Amino acid sequence: MAPASRATPEGMTMPAPLTTAIIDQVREYAVDTLPPDVVTAAKHCLLDWLGCAVAGSGEPIAEILRAQADADGGRRECSIMGQPGKVNTTQACLINGAASHSQDYDDVLEIMLGHPSVTVAPVAFALGERDRRSGADVLAAFVAGVQVEASVGALVEPQHHERGWHTTATLGTFGATAAACRLLGLDRDAWNRAFGLAATQAGGLKSMFGTMGKPFHAGKAAAQGYVAASLAARGMTSAPNVLEIPRGFLDVTTPGAPGGRTSLPPKDFAVRQVLFKAHAACYLTHSTIEGVLELARTHKFSVADIESIEVEVLPVHRTTCAISAPETGLEAKFSIAHAAAIALVEGKAGEAQFTDGIVHRPGIRELAGRVVLREGESQRSQMVTPVRITLCDGRRLDAVVDTGAPARGAGIARQWDRLVAKFMDLTTPVLGASAAGRIVALVEKLEQLSTLDELTGMVGGGLLDARFR
Amino acid sequence: MAPASRATPEGMTMPAPLTTAIIDQVREYAVDTLPPDVVTAAKHCLLDWLGCAVAGSGEPIAEILRAQADADGGRRECSIMGQPGKVNTTQACLINGAASHSQDYDDVLEIMLGHPSVTVAPVAFALGERDRRSGADVLAAFVAGVQVEASVGALVEPQHHERGWHTTATLGTFGATAAACRLLGLDRDAWNRAFGLAATQAGGLKSMFGTMGKPFHAGKAAAQGYVAASLAARGMTSAPNVLEIPRGFLDVTTPGAPGGRTSLPPKDFAVRQVLFKAHAACYLTHSTIEGVLELARTHKFSVADIESIEVEVLPVHRTTCAISAPETGLEAKFSIAHAAAIALVEGKAGEAQFTDGIVHRPGIRELAGRVVLREGESQRSQMVTPVRITLCDGRRLDAVVDTGAPARGAGIARQWDRLVAKFMDLTTPVLGASAAGRIVALVEKLEQLSTLDELTGMVGGGLLDARFR
Repeated sequence: MAPASRATPEGMTMPAPLTTAIIDQVREYAVDTLPPDVVTAAKHCLLDWLGCAVAGSGEPIAEILRAQADADGGRRECSIMGQPGKVNTTQACLINGAASHSQDYDDVLEIMLGHPSVTVAPVAFALGERDRRSGADVLAAFVAGVQVEASVGALVEPQHHERGWHTTATLGTFGATAAACRLLGLDRDAWNRAFGLAATQAGGLKSMFGTMGKPFHAGKAAAQGYVAASLAARGMTSAPNVLEIPRGFLDVTTPGAPGGRTSLPPKDFAVRQVLFKAHAACYLTHSTIEGVLELARTHKFSVADIESIEVEVLPVHRTTCAISAPETGLEAKFSIAHAAAIALVEGKAGEAQFTDGIVHRPGIRELAGRVVLREGESQRSQMVTPVRITLCDGRRLDAVVDTGAPARGAGIARQWDRLVAKFMDLTTPVLGASAAGRIVALVEKLEQLSTLDELTGMVGGGLLDARFR
Repeated sequence: MAPASRATPEGMTMPAPLTTAIIDQVREYAVDTLPPDVVTAAKHCLLDWLGCAVAGSGEPIAEILRAQADADGGRRECSIMGQPGKVNTTQACLINGAASHSQDYDDVLEIMLGHPSVTVAPVAFALGERDRRSGADVLAAFVAGVQVEASVGALVEPQHHERGWHTTATLGTFGATAAACRLLGLDRDAWNRAFGLAATQAGGLKSMFGTMGKPFHAGKAAAQGYVAASLAARGMTSAPNVLEIPRGFLDVTTPGAPGGRTSLPPKDFAVRQVLFKAHAACYLTHSTIEGVLELARTHKFSVADIESIEVEVLPVHRTTCAISAPETGLEAKFSIAHAAAIALVEGKAGEAQFTDGIVHRPGIRELAGRVVLREGESQRSQMVTPVRITLCDGRRLDAVVDTGAPARGAGIARQWDRLVAKFMDLTTPVLGASAAGRIVALVEKLEQLSTLDELTGMVGGGLLDARFR
């Protein structure tokens, strides 16, 4: 009805200028001055994101958003990953963001309790392509975006997630905004106004999980971030220091935050902490899947030999990935029992395994019915779910896999190899093996590319009709 | 990171299916079956909204959004009120919604604690124009949209507003969605999915008040409503019954709501309750402005005769419209003292009076300095602020004006006359008196128009360059 006074209520102690601190940390990121392993980590994220975007581009939500973009019309300036044709920048962010999250196969970041790349990478690629920016600029913008998501996440998590916000949507809007501000070359004041416009657009409810609303959030966050930065560049005003002011982002969405964490932003690079899905299911099922696969590999039993499978879980697993009677492949991705059964029967748990039919196959259903979830130690990481398989002959086989540790040292090269294999699996049916291999080579040297032209030409936009290759 | 289970937490009692009840109330609204005074009230809203949209189209935020639309490109299918050229449906909703709220001169609705028309009318006009729908369909869609805003508002207010949400943004997204669903002719299931997509897009922080972020919210809500309905029509899924489900709109944005108000939706038509601004300032200053103008008219004193002005206020006035030292005309709109001074010195308080210069004029500043705000009775309506002017000769003049009562009976015709005068004031400088008069005549018989063609041709779109008339 009418504006409230903008004055700080009397007696209220203002926290540190968090918004400005976060902006200042990332505003001048450049590949030349970032540690080399940070640049490498960003390339891992971008390769994985491209694969998810290409594979997801055939999902119904991506088709719906392309039809909406076609109805709206617009400049043809940015590629749709895995699809022919181009759309405008806003539409590219929306479509590519939603497509890349539509299979829930994309990367995760624990500090934001969400998915880091699906909101930031679409903006980095769209603006990089449109404005013919270098691969180095795109990488720096991406690192900045992920750092901002993590920084805001560190302020509000876990309360924000617990209140019912889909963190990928809300925090992702800030990340996308940062990537756009970096590529548009905004000054400090404009960054701050853009963050205000990001905060006042941020939304997204966890009740959308299991529907197209969830991947829609990722695209929407990416598009909103681009719009926030672009409108700020055109002079739109907003409230500065939006994270910490009264009736700002923290105050309205997550009362009580920040707790005792005003020493932000984090000193380490968040992109180093990103984890990648090796299986096409909720990341919280990964330690179970890897546990049963390790036991099957080591002990050579057959599925018929299994009497029971016990998995130690925490409360978060019960509220996140314990759907007891999934009806669709998407729901099976959020069922530890079904993920374990699928992995054991199929020998893997990739996108091809999580079909709608698989949840009704007798062998899978029967085995899933023999999975028991038990309370684990409350101090344990949510990325560790000890598995015990009891065989009919009485043998008990135990495995404890920790899927919470980011790659380090020699593990980084192994991670790249795994991501390349995943990328080839996801994209070869769409793009063909030759193009897919060429894209891997381009991403591997992304910081040396003077423009994205060849890369975007291979992965989308320039394709006449990739589906018929 | 991963979806939570969609199951209802054990022991949680689900409230009535509010979302469905609200949808069912409005889904088949038609001018033939709505009470005639409801249709009349809707025409009052639409005339007032058109005037605000035309007058606001020259404001900086409207220029910024037009530039952004130009950069995006798109079909040229919907008019921009008060401006040449056409844009696509989404852009028209955004631009017209923001322009119409940019001067804070548009109508208000107490049950939603916000502005009803700026989010709904842009959608009704854009889809009505694009799809060549009748004036009757546009009116029915508008009434439906306002009813939905009010219904959701009744569920969450005042807690929603108090938590820091800009209600025009959040509730307005639902209203815009309803108007779009009605004009797109969606079935019941699609309405429900559209409401889910509305809820998960809804956002908007009160900390944006005083910046361009506030009018941006109105346009964004309108655009989001159109997008929600359009994507639902294309088959996008979302969580049904989004208002009342766990991690739904009430649960996440306004914990604790609904209080004891599950007898919703309201039985009366909300559009009957809409109030119109007669002065270009916060509606909560209106009873003060009208009080001092009534005293000046009755008692014929001069400004030099005034010793002091006392105004009885409630806490809401202090947090909403008590900026003590405004620096701009926009800020003066949220200062009871300056609004009173301007009304007394200028004899009126229209858009032309709230310039940036007026707050620094000695006569105004000096008189505003003699205004004293005193605590009023807590039971009093916020639309009543008793005024006492004490003259230098010792006389005390009292006025109590209630600006909270919607027009009824013969007052409805007087209200139309006042709205016509306001419309002519706002639009003649942009469109010329002849076109403005013709638009009034068209809106007066809107339910008889088979299309909006002539109306939108006069008010926007068809104009070559209205600014140079």
